[in-house]
Amino acid sequence: MLVKDLNKLVNKEAEIKGWVFNLRSSGSLYFLQIRDGSGFVQAIVNKESVASEVWEQCQKITLETSVVLQGVVTEHPKKIGEYELQVTGLKLIHIAEEYPIGKKEHGPDFLMEWRHLWLRSPKQWAILRVRDAIILAINEFLHQQNFIKVDSPVFTPNACEGTTTLFAVPYFDLGNAFLSQSGQLYIEAAISSVGRCYDFGPVFRAEKSKTKRHLTEFWMMDAEGAFIEHEENLRLQEDLVRYIIRYCLTNCQKELAILERDTQKLQQADAPFVRLSYDVAIKKLKELGSDIQYGDDLGNDDEGLLTKDSAVPVFIEKWPKSIKPFYMKRDSSNPDLVLNDDLIATEGAGELIGGSQREDDYNLLLERIKAEGLKVEDYEWYLDMRKYGSVPHSGFGIGLERTVRWITGVEHIRECIPFPRMITRLKP
Amino acid sequence: MLVKDLNKLVNKEAEIKGWVFNLRSSGSLYFLQIRDGSGFVQAIVNKESVASEVWEQCQKITLETSVVLQGVVTEHPKKIGEYELQVTGLKLIHIAEEYPIGKKEHGPDFLMEWRHLWLRSPKQWAILRVRDAIILAINEFLHQQNFIKVDSPVFTPNACEGTTTLFAVPYFDLGNAFLSQSGQLYIEAAISSVGRCYDFGPVFRAEKSKTKRHLTEFWMMDAEGAFIEHEENLRLQEDLVRYIIRYCLTNCQKELAILERDTQKLQQADAPFVRLSYDVAIKKLKELGSDIQYGDDLGNDDEGLLTKDSAVPVFIEKWPKSIKPFYMKRDSSNPDLVLNDDLIATEGAGELIGGSQREDDYNLLLERIKAEGLKVEDYEWYLDMRKYGSVPHSGFGIGLERTVRWITGVEHIRECIPFPRMITRLKP
Repeated sequence: MLVKDLNKLVNKEAEIKGWVFNLRSSGSLYFLQIRDGSGFVQAIVNKESVASEVWEQCQKITLETSVVLQGVVTEHPKKIGEYELQVTGLKLIHIAEEYPIGKKEHGPDFLMEWRHLWLRSPKQWAILRVRDAIILAINEFLHQQNFIKVDSPVFTPNACEGTTTLFAVPYFDLGNAFLSQSGQLYIEAAISSVGRCYDFGPVFRAEKSKTKRHLTEFWMMDAEGAFIEHEENLRLQEDLVRYIIRYCLTNCQKELAILERDTQKLQQADAPFVRLSYDVAIKKLKELGSDIQYGDDLGNDDEGLLTKDSAVPVFIEKWPKSIKPFYMKRDSSNPDLVLNDDLIATEGAGELIGGSQREDDYNLLLERIKAEGLKVEDYEWYLDMRKYGSVPHSGFGIGLERTVRWITGVEHIRECIPFPRMITRLKP
Repeated sequence: MLVKDLNKLVNKEAEIKGWVFNLRSSGSLYFLQIRDGSGFVQAIVNKESVASEVWEQCQKITLETSVVLQGVVTEHPKKIGEYELQVTGLKLIHIAEEYPIGKKEHGPDFLMEWRHLWLRSPKQWAILRVRDAIILAINEFLHQQNFIKVDSPVFTPNACEGTTTLFAVPYFDLGNAFLSQSGQLYIEAAISSVGRCYDFGPVFRAEKSKTKRHLTEFWMMDAEGAFIEHEENLRLQEDLVRYIIRYCLTNCQKELAILERDTQKLQQADAPFVRLSYDVAIKKLKELGSDIQYGDDLGNDDEGLLTKDSAVPVFIEKWPKSIKPFYMKRDSSNPDLVLNDDLIATEGAGELIGGSQREDDYNLLLERIKAEGLKVEDYEWYLDMRKYGSVPHSGFGIGLERTVRWITGVEHIRECIPFPRMITRLKP
């Protein structure tokens, strides 16, 4: 019997298996806080009503000891919808040694060193479960929209966006392979087969950034669709993000409560998103006191400024092509701009999504590849798509950990992935 | 309008967008085979009933030209459940150059070189879609069984199973990172938080094997559950595989027809699986003429021999511990054996799953780590799980491409992943 299902056995006998994550005794009562992965429950051992062996076993319980408990499920005397277990039988599976993670505050380095145990804390449990829910929401939404999953490779012969932040791996007799930073180019090729598709897997950036938003290994979902143009691309992104919000609000109530997330803020974000052109965004930033210049990329502070008064995420669209990758399609009404967007989340959570319509003209794309100083031969396969039945198409990539960070309201991205990898951390 | 939804518009006007993957003309008729990713349909252009411009445009169509077509949906005169489009309007989006993949047979090297285009062929389209269905089936089944997805890292500081087949990546100032061969150890740690979990992502083996079953990068799903023991572990594996079969038979009828898969064989495999102990399997193999000896691993031929007369997959359980990894739990009735299993698919498709109950005793595990000559300090975090509330637990890993190969009946595993990576192939 899982803890989450105890509500089905009120006033009946149940057996649960789990870990004691907290305990206190008071005279002839023992209060055991039990966790089994599906939920949390308080088990009460009453000396008067259990066999003497059970009471003796209780004395041996330490934090994180694993147990099997039998008992009668009762409604919590005060909290509606919560249940307790009035223990009748108890078996200790394994008495834990003194647990290194105590109730006092630990520094992040200490906790990261013990990440494999830290995951057991209710807050980390809640983050893992919200992350799972976001993954499910993404898969569900995309399939409803006729996308299928087409996995892109991790080993790539060349770079999608620049080469300075690539991890290189010696690969048999073929020189170096590079770990993928984005599967976009591959799923672009696949849309000519399946129409709409996405990948969803780990990507790698050897970036020497030690911010709260950087990991060297993180998960990304790239979606790409044939015959999708800029407007529809933005609509899809907005629909996806709002789907994620609703999915989590519906399915992760307990988790968000543990995280003390202000869910009203999430509810408010589930409304039509704001759209600003890059041009207007820069003007607005200057008014707000930023020293940003037209042609600059947006920094974290700028993203914060632009969204601080917005209850909904903000699209910044149509950026200067000079600061964006070669594959973005030019805006026909102003060829210095591209048909792209960045989606900035609320509450200072920063960029969630980058997307664009892709250049579908063979000659214009070839020109851009050359202008960027990229080797044409590396992109011949990618150009092929524009030789054999080119179609207008668009796509976007959403960072999983950034989305988890936003939905959970967690400060640091390293808590948004089970085993984070950073410049200075490769363990456990 | 997607081709798959044309059945909803019989005798009505529809517009579709896609690629011409075959065409022929016959007097005043043009027959265009259209693909849009969601399905395939024949569009018929009748010179008598279309504007002269439309007929002229038809003359320009080459293989893989992208088009927008308007027309009236009609039922296929002979094939029930198939539809045709009687074209009224046509726009060419992009006239394809001469397509390199013709109707004649091409060798595998040629096709792999053009993998980005080869994916467009109906057979490859069908494989991509079956792969997607298998992924969905796995995610769906596991969530029904209360597993959540907990992603394990790709960058690892040490090896799960031996070091000879690891890819090494220079990692900042921390020496080498190794690309994960399996996330098992990590999800084992996570069960103490979430109870049941799985990862599902790319794994890497630098194995110098050039068989039909080897890739250097492939996808694996590892599941792990607290309080699951050997018997339940086998039951879960069987239930999962049978769920996948049923899911594909229900949702991939068209795809399996294109692949000319004998679906009766799959239906027959959806029945209780056979179980053999390793001991009995060796005896049986000897009877069948194999020169295998007790204590040997099973080769492909052995797997084939053991399953050739079986309509259902075969579990080989309880192997000698000497040929299995250190983390497997010893069989209490014979400590030379471990509580593990390999699941061998039917029709010569080979091993799909490897699983075991895990050693949950700190001292026995430590002893095994030392005996294998592994560095204890590398596994201290893994041992911790046995220090702080150890529980009986089991898990298994299923190879995605091997499952795709089995369900689709495709000969070579390189067709079972969108962009295969092999010893001699890193492109496109």
